[in-house]
Amino acid sequence: MDGRMMAYPLTLIPLLERARQVFGSVEIVSRRPDRSIVRTTYADLHRRARALAEGLQRAGLRRGDRVATMMWNHSAHLEAYFGIPAAGGVLHTLNLRLHPDELAYIVNHAEDRFLIVDDVLLPILTKIRDKVNFERVWVNSFPGTTLPEGPESYDAMLAEAKGDFAYPDLGENDAAAMCYTSGTTGKPKGVLYSHRAMVLHSFAMALPDACAMSFNDCVLQASSMFHANGWGFPYTATMVGAKLVFPGPNVDGESLLDLICAEEVTLANGVPTVWIGVCDALDKHAGRWKVPAGLRVLSAGSAVPESLMRNLDPHGIRIFQGWGMTETTPLATMSHVDPEERKQAAEAQAQEREVPWDGQSLGELHIRGPWIAESYFNMPEAQDRWTEDGWFRTGDVVSIYPNGCIRIADRAKDLIKSGGEWISSVDLENALMNHPAVQEAAVVGVPHPKWQERPLAVVVCRNGAQVGKEELREFLAARFAKWQLPDAIVFAGEIPRTSVGKFLKSRLREQYSNWKWEP
Amino acid sequence: MDGRMMAYPLTLIPLLERARQVFGSVEIVSRRPDRSIVRTTYADLHRRARALAEGLQRAGLRRGDRVATMMWNHSAHLEAYFGIPAAGGVLHTLNLRLHPDELAYIVNHAEDRFLIVDDVLLPILTKIRDKVNFERVWVNSFPGTTLPEGPESYDAMLAEAKGDFAYPDLGENDAAAMCYTSGTTGKPKGVLYSHRAMVLHSFAMALPDACAMSFNDCVLQASSMFHANGWGFPYTATMVGAKLVFPGPNVDGESLLDLICAEEVTLANGVPTVWIGVCDALDKHAGRWKVPAGLRVLSAGSAVPESLMRNLDPHGIRIFQGWGMTETTPLATMSHVDPEERKQAAEAQAQEREVPWDGQSLGELHIRGPWIAESYFNMPEAQDRWTEDGWFRTGDVVSIYPNGCIRIADRAKDLIKSGGEWISSVDLENALMNHPAVQEAAVVGVPHPKWQERPLAVVVCRNGAQVGKEELREFLAARFAKWQLPDAIVFAGEIPRTSVGKFLKSRLREQYSNWKWEP
Repeated sequence: MDGRMMAYPLTLIPLLERARQVFGSVEIVSRRPDRSIVRTTYADLHRRARALAEGLQRAGLRRGDRVATMMWNHSAHLEAYFGIPAAGGVLHTLNLRLHPDELAYIVNHAEDRFLIVDDVLLPILTKIRDKVNFERVWVNSFPGTTLPEGPESYDAMLAEAKGDFAYPDLGENDAAAMCYTSGTTGKPKGVLYSHRAMVLHSFAMALPDACAMSFNDCVLQASSMFHANGWGFPYTATMVGAKLVFPGPNVDGESLLDLICAEEVTLANGVPTVWIGVCDALDKHAGRWKVPAGLRVLSAGSAVPESLMRNLDPHGIRIFQGWGMTETTPLATMSHVDPEERKQAAEAQAQEREVPWDGQSLGELHIRGPWIAESYFNMPEAQDRWTEDGWFRTGDVVSIYPNGCIRIADRAKDLIKSGGEWISSVDLENALMNHPAVQEAAVVGVPHPKWQERPLAVVVCRNGAQVGKEELREFLAARFAKWQLPDAIVFAGEIPRTSVGKFLKSRLREQYSNWKWEP
Repeated sequence: MDGRMMAYPLTLIPLLERARQVFGSVEIVSRRPDRSIVRTTYADLHRRARALAEGLQRAGLRRGDRVATMMWNHSAHLEAYFGIPAAGGVLHTLNLRLHPDELAYIVNHAEDRFLIVDDVLLPILTKIRDKVNFERVWVNSFPGTTLPEGPESYDAMLAEAKGDFAYPDLGENDAAAMCYTSGTTGKPKGVLYSHRAMVLHSFAMALPDACAMSFNDCVLQASSMFHANGWGFPYTATMVGAKLVFPGPNVDGESLLDLICAEEVTLANGVPTVWIGVCDALDKHAGRWKVPAGLRVLSAGSAVPESLMRNLDPHGIRIFQGWGMTETTPLATMSHVDPEERKQAAEAQAQEREVPWDGQSLGELHIRGPWIAESYFNMPEAQDRWTEDGWFRTGDVVSIYPNGCIRIADRAKDLIKSGGEWISSVDLENALMNHPAVQEAAVVGVPHPKWQERPLAVVVCRNGAQVGKEELREFLAARFAKWQLPDAIVFAGEIPRTSVGKFLKSRLREQYSNWKWEP
C-alpha cells in the first residue's frame, strides 16, 4: 500500500524558484579574470538562468541534449548549472586542464551539442575545434575583451529572452548534469547525474554533520566548477540561500585571502593544493589579512596533509575532510576533527561490512546510495566497476573505525606490494609532509627483484630548505616499521599532477620503473 | 534521458541499519512512568526493532497492515516507529487524549489489525475494547506492574525472535505510518505517510536553518509521539545519531527540567504549554536548575506567545517556532529569531505566490511538496481540501514577508469578521498574554446584531494576579485600532483544550454564542 503523499519530484527547479522567492536579494559575488568584482543576486540568477533555458529551447534543445560549459567559477557558470537542466538539457562541465585530445574525446563521447565558453578560454576551444562538432557556441565575454569573429555572444542570447519560458515537465530521474572522471588510467568515463541525485546530495551536504551550510553562511566556491559539480556547493548554497563567492581563475593564496577577508567568507572548499597556497601566503605576509572568525574549509580530492591542518589552525582556519568521487556526486563521507578530538561519526553511506570496523582491517570501499552512479554513460565495458549486487567499487583501499570514520589507506593501484605485505603510499606521504623541510612528497611502488615492489619516495623541499635522505628515513622510522620505509628517496623540483591537482603516480611509476636498487 | 544513478529507495531501513553501524553505542534514555530512568542504545533499538518486525511477520502481518500503538514517549515506542515499517506494516499512533468514541472510530476507520499498548494505558483500551477488533494486543509492561489476564506480553514477543528477520523489499512510496488529525470539527481524517516522506522530512528537519540537529546533540522528545510523528524528531535523531531522551508521561515543568539538566539536553521540542510549565518552574524555584548552555527549543502546535520567548530568554533557553500540520509530516516552515534580529528566511516550501509577499496581505496558505499529503486515507469526501492543481489548503490565514517568513494570522475559521473587516484572534491573544497578570487568553468571534461578529476574550490570570478589564483594554489599545479591541473580556479558571493542547475555540464559541453585548 502506497502512502498518500504528493508526487513531488526532486528537481533543481524548486531550488531555483525558491532562491528567487526567499533569497532574491542575497548576493552572488564573482571575481572576473581581470580581478574586478561583480555583484549579482539570486534574483539575477533566477532571471538569467531562465533566459538561458529559453535561449536553449529557442536554439532547438531537445530533452536530454548535452550542453557543454568551458568556464571558470563565476555567476555565469552558476547560470549554466541551473539554466541548462531547467531547460531539460544536461549540463556537461568540461575540465579545462585536460589534454586537447582527451577533451575532444570527451566532447565527442558525450555528443555535446552546444557549448558555452568564457572568452578567456577560447584558446582551449581553438585547440579542439576541428576535432569536435558543436552545433552552436556561445561566448561569455568579460568587459574589455573583444568577441572574435565566429562564435555568438552569450549575453546577446540572454538579452533576446522574452521571459515567457515555461519549465518542461521534468521527472526526478531525468538527467541534469554530466561529468567525466579524470582517471589516470583508461579512457575518461562519463557520469550522468539525475535531478534527484543533485537535490538529495544538496540536503546531505548542508547537514550539520557535513558542511553545516546555512542561510547565514558566506560560501567561497574555490573548487573548480568544471570538476565533480564543484562538489555540489553551487546547488547546496542556492538551496539554503547562502551568499556565494566565486574567485574566477585566480585561486592563488593571496587572491583567495583578499576575497575571503573582503567578503567575510565563513565556509570554503578546495583541494589541498589551494589551501597549501593560502597557508604559505599567510606565513609569508604575517598580519596582512584578518581571516574571518570561524572560517571552515572543506578540503577533498586528495588526502589533506596533517601538517596543513596544523599550520592553518593558528590562523583560525579549521579544515575538515571530505571523501568522494565523480561517481558519487561527489560527497560520500566527511570527517571533522574538533578541538577536544571528540570521536565524530562520518557520513558513512551504507558500506558493506565485510571486513570488521576495527580501524585496522583493510578492504576496498564499496558504496551505494541515492546519489551514487549505477553505470557510466555509454560504456558497458566498464560495468565491472560495480558488484553483481549493485555496489560501486571505489578502487580505494580503506579501514573503517568503529564510529564509522574511514581511513583511506590508498588507491588500490597505489598500494605497494612488498614481499606479500601491503604498504600504504598515502601514509608515507603524509608522514613525509609533516617534516618541516618537505613541501610535497609522493611515494610509489617500484619493481624490485627480491620483494616484487619496494617504496620509492619523491620529495620536493620547501623553498630554501634542505634535508638529508638519512634524516628523512629516521623521521619516518618513528612511525613506521623498518620494512615499510622507502628504500629510495629522490629529490625533485615538482611532482607531476593530474588535471585536478592530484599526484600523477602513473607517471612516477613509469619514470622510476627501471630504478637500480642498492644491493 | 534518465540519469545513471542507483535506484536506491528512501526508506527508514537504512536509517535503522546505519544507527547500528555508526551510532550503536549512542544512548537512548527513557523515563518510566514510575520516574525511574532506563538507558538503552541505538544498537538495542536496532536489535529490538528487528525483533518486533520479526514478531509481527510471525503474527501474520501483511504488507500495508496497520499496527496501532497506544504509548507514551519512550524507547519501546521508538522501536515501534522503526519495527512496524521495517516489517512492511504501517505504524498507527493513537492519540491517548481523544474521547473513547473518537478513538474507536479511528481504530475502525484505519482498520488497525494489531495493537501495542503501555500497561499504564490499559484503562484507555478497556474503554474502547468492545467497539474495536484488534486481532492481537501486546502489552509493554514496566517493571513492578503485573500483566492482566488476556493480552500478550510485548517483551515476550521480542524474546521469541530468532534474529533471522529479513527486510521486505520496500519501495520508497510504500506507506510507513499513519496519523489522524485531531481537528476540532468534522470526523478525524487519516494521513498516510510514505517512507520517502519520512526520510526527506528528516533531512529537512536536521538542516542548519531548521533544527540544526547533529550527532553532537542530546535531543529531548517532549512533544507526544502519538501525535504527528513526534514532529519527526524520532526519525531525525536516529538519522544523525543524536542522543535521545524520552520523558515518558511526566512532562510537567519540574520533571522536564530535572531530565534536561541530568542528561545535558541541547535540543528539545514541545507545545507552548509544556514550555510555559518549564518557565513557571524556573521562576518558582530560582537557582534550582542549571540549564545546559545553548539549549534550543522547537515549539509548535499553536502560536508561541512572545511573552514565553522573552521569559525563557534570561534562563538561557532559546525558543524557535515551527509551523506544520499532521498533513505536512509535520514540519512545513520554521522561524528563528536571533540576537541581532537579523532577518531569517523561513523554510517556506513552495507556496503559491498569489498575494504579494509584503507581510500585510492576507490569504489562505496553500502548500505542496514531497512530504505533504495528497489525500486522506479512505475519505474521498474530504478531497476539497486540495486545489484542483494539487495544492493542500491548510486552512490557515497568513501573510508572508518578503524574506519568506510567514505570519499565521489565524485559522480561517477563527478569524473574526466584524462589519466586513477581519480581526485576527491570534494577534489579540498574543498581545493579552504579554500582560504580566495574564497566564492565558483566547479570543473568539461571537455573533453580534450589528457587526455580524465581535471579539470576546477569555482570560486566565496568573496565580494570585489580578487585573481589571479596562486595564487590559488600555494595554491592547497601544497595539490595536479601537475597532479591533475585544468588546467583552471574561475571566475564567482555564481555557478548554484539544487533545493536543490547543485552545478548543469551537467550545468557547458555543459557550458564548448567546452573549448579551452591552449596548
